[in-house]
Amino acid sequence: MPAGTLLYAQSGGVTAVINASASAVIQAARARKVRVLAARNGILGALREQLIDTTSMPLAQVKALAHTPGGAFGSCRLKLKSLDADRAKYERLLAVFKAHDVRWFLYNGGNDSADTALKVSQLAAEYGYPLTCVGVPKTIDNDLAVTDCCPGFGSAAKYTAVSVRECALDVAAMAETSTKVFVYEAMGRHAGWLAAAAGLAGAGKDDAPHLILFPERAYDEADFLARVDAVVKRVGHCVVVASEGIRTADGRFVADAGGGKDAFGHTQLGGVASQLAGRVKDVLGYKVHWTLPDYLQRSARHIASKTDLEQAMAVGRAAVECALNGQNAVMPVIVREADAPYRWHVDIAALSAIANHEKTMPKGFIRKDGHGITAAARRYLQPLIEGEAYPPYGRNGLPDYVVPKHAALRRKLPAWQG
Amino acid sequence: MPAGTLLYAQSGGVTAVINASASAVIQAARARKVRVLAARNGILGALREQLIDTTSMPLAQVKALAHTPGGAFGSCRLKLKSLDADRAKYERLLAVFKAHDVRWFLYNGGNDSADTALKVSQLAAEYGYPLTCVGVPKTIDNDLAVTDCCPGFGSAAKYTAVSVRECALDVAAMAETSTKVFVYEAMGRHAGWLAAAAGLAGAGKDDAPHLILFPERAYDEADFLARVDAVVKRVGHCVVVASEGIRTADGRFVADAGGGKDAFGHTQLGGVASQLAGRVKDVLGYKVHWTLPDYLQRSARHIASKTDLEQAMAVGRAAVECALNGQNAVMPVIVREADAPYRWHVDIAALSAIANHEKTMPKGFIRKDGHGITAAARRYLQPLIEGEAYPPYGRNGLPDYVVPKHAALRRKLPAWQG
Repeated sequence: MPAGTLLYAQSGGVTAVINASASAVIQAARARKVRVLAARNGILGALREQLIDTTSMPLAQVKALAHTPGGAFGSCRLKLKSLDADRAKYERLLAVFKAHDVRWFLYNGGNDSADTALKVSQLAAEYGYPLTCVGVPKTIDNDLAVTDCCPGFGSAAKYTAVSVRECALDVAAMAETSTKVFVYEAMGRHAGWLAAAAGLAGAGKDDAPHLILFPERAYDEADFLARVDAVVKRVGHCVVVASEGIRTADGRFVADAGGGKDAFGHTQLGGVASQLAGRVKDVLGYKVHWTLPDYLQRSARHIASKTDLEQAMAVGRAAVECALNGQNAVMPVIVREADAPYRWHVDIAALSAIANHEKTMPKGFIRKDGHGITAAARRYLQPLIEGEAYPPYGRNGLPDYVVPKHAALRRKLPAWQG
Repeated sequence: MPAGTLLYAQSGGVTAVINASASAVIQAARARKVRVLAARNGILGALREQLIDTTSMPLAQVKALAHTPGGAFGSCRLKLKSLDADRAKYERLLAVFKAHDVRWFLYNGGNDSADTALKVSQLAAEYGYPLTCVGVPKTIDNDLAVTDCCPGFGSAAKYTAVSVRECALDVAAMAETSTKVFVYEAMGRHAGWLAAAAGLAGAGKDDAPHLILFPERAYDEADFLARVDAVVKRVGHCVVVASEGIRTADGRFVADAGGGKDAFGHTQLGGVASQLAGRVKDVLGYKVHWTLPDYLQRSARHIASKTDLEQAMAVGRAAVECALNGQNAVMPVIVREADAPYRWHVDIAALSAIANHEKTMPKGFIRKDGHGITAAARRYLQPLIEGEAYPPYGRNGLPDYVVPKHAALRRKLPAWQG
């Protein structure tokens, strides 16, 4: 068994397949005889020295993580600032790492987590502590730079496309005497990736979704209502998909509900669909319904994309290889070789190229009229939702998700006073 | 081929498996060499003489209906009044039936549809027109009398239990630094059947959902908030499932959004989860998220219950047998033989015993504290979500749902002036 331990932590909003990455990390490390610790609630657990020794997890349980949504070790929203501004925290991290002989640190998250992993690696270098830091990509927002796509996105995209297709069939059946306009709210603060994925639900001109509202385009109420009205008059009903982050030309979020900010400084949203539905009802007078799937869209492991699952596991395995090879301050990324049939492989990128960058949707993905996706977007998105990867079900009709009971590792340091 | 045609129509809110009943009806009738017409948009299509000849539908398409959600022939919300009050409509129906030699009328719906089918049979008898009227049960509300359960409910129940389990894992992973209280809004105007089904998501004392709010119990804000606070303090987070129809002791709906009434005279609801979440945020100060799945929960064929699917098809087949045997004014119902292992069969009940009755949840299904389900409720609900019945998927990652293009049958009567 090599000297030292590998510390794995989950960060930011969880996905349907982040535990699949965890499963792959633990299995790959075990194959190399490396002991894996997991931090409880991400970097927070590392600061608090709340660590879990995964050695005692039975292999069947480790494997079952691959079909379990949520974050098995707990995640967190905690953005560390610069090395100077948060030096005490970074030094505490190093102290915990030293106390538990952590030589490899794998942080499974998005932009902010890549930034944290990079800073930790810089601090370790500054203090001469031998540590290899590797990011493991994850986000339903699909906004990481360099990588062609982000594990977690494909499954949320599949959930979105399937759900929109299903509710559209419902609305079409009832529109003559009931709901004529239906609004589906998709996650996406700054980039309309998931709203775009909804576009896969239909292909023909009058297929649902009939209108997609992207945060990349300014929202204009009069234009929106006129389009809805035209679709209802032509098709008989109208299914709208709206990104939570749409804003008017003056930069104000259409969702004025919520309005708080999370630990990353992001505005908390949630009320776009109800806002739009209310305007349609009041101005156009159509009967409306709306849905806010919220966390359902990022935890729906029951409708995960097989492609996404395979990529989540591949980056987990690759991260362990990078770490044990001493490739510091890097992140495994997905490289696309071909659209159809889809081919991809894993490559390695520098964390510095990913940290704090945000990939927006290419302009060529949004139709010229601003309310649908282009053929280029379809070519990109289509493969990401391909394949089904159902969890096993118990005789009780529910998926066999595991909730490991973690034994906390004994502390070696005084409690953190952060 | 027997003289006469069989007319099939879909009514009320559609479900994930109402088309499975349609598929079974058409297949069973074809086996008996009976020609099946379908009314477009339910009874409305019959009034308007907008009929579809299903003879031209390829068998593969008919079979594919069994895995397609929505209402393939269109449904409607149109409640006919008494024979006297709506005599012109009933007479028009008879005229259309006569014009197309309809001898068997199958109406696939809930309470109101059973009532309509019963009245049509009474009018036919009054006019001496040989017509056999049979109801086919369907409703996600599970509120039909006599039958042990309603086709459509089991799939919505499975969607609910699975979704609540999944988002609960998400919330649990993030609660330390993010959302501590999550509210899931379940359909159910008067009876909390779907909210109760959410209870299947967990079994232990501290498993989600931690609190269920039933329309059968008066909502008390102070009590609710105190319970939420206690759960958060004990468990670290709290998942709430609320029926859309919950009311305060003075009878007011907690959801004051919407407020309109549909064609059945039911109040249109939709905003319970956001209301509750707002109170939790303002009074308790916890970060909250909420979800309103709305139509997603009744159209989610991708997570249908195999039990539910089989029952939907069984009542469709049985309805054809009843009709061709001349059993008038009846409805096939589900009879439960045993809970575990679950055994059931189809029996025949009089429409008069079903029309306009509403089955509420037994008192013994709600826990004494009013916020969870009992062992008796589990024994009843559990079998209804058992088994998976996935639709086939295309290589594009989407279910192979069919949208038949219907050729309208040529009209024989003057246009309806109703």
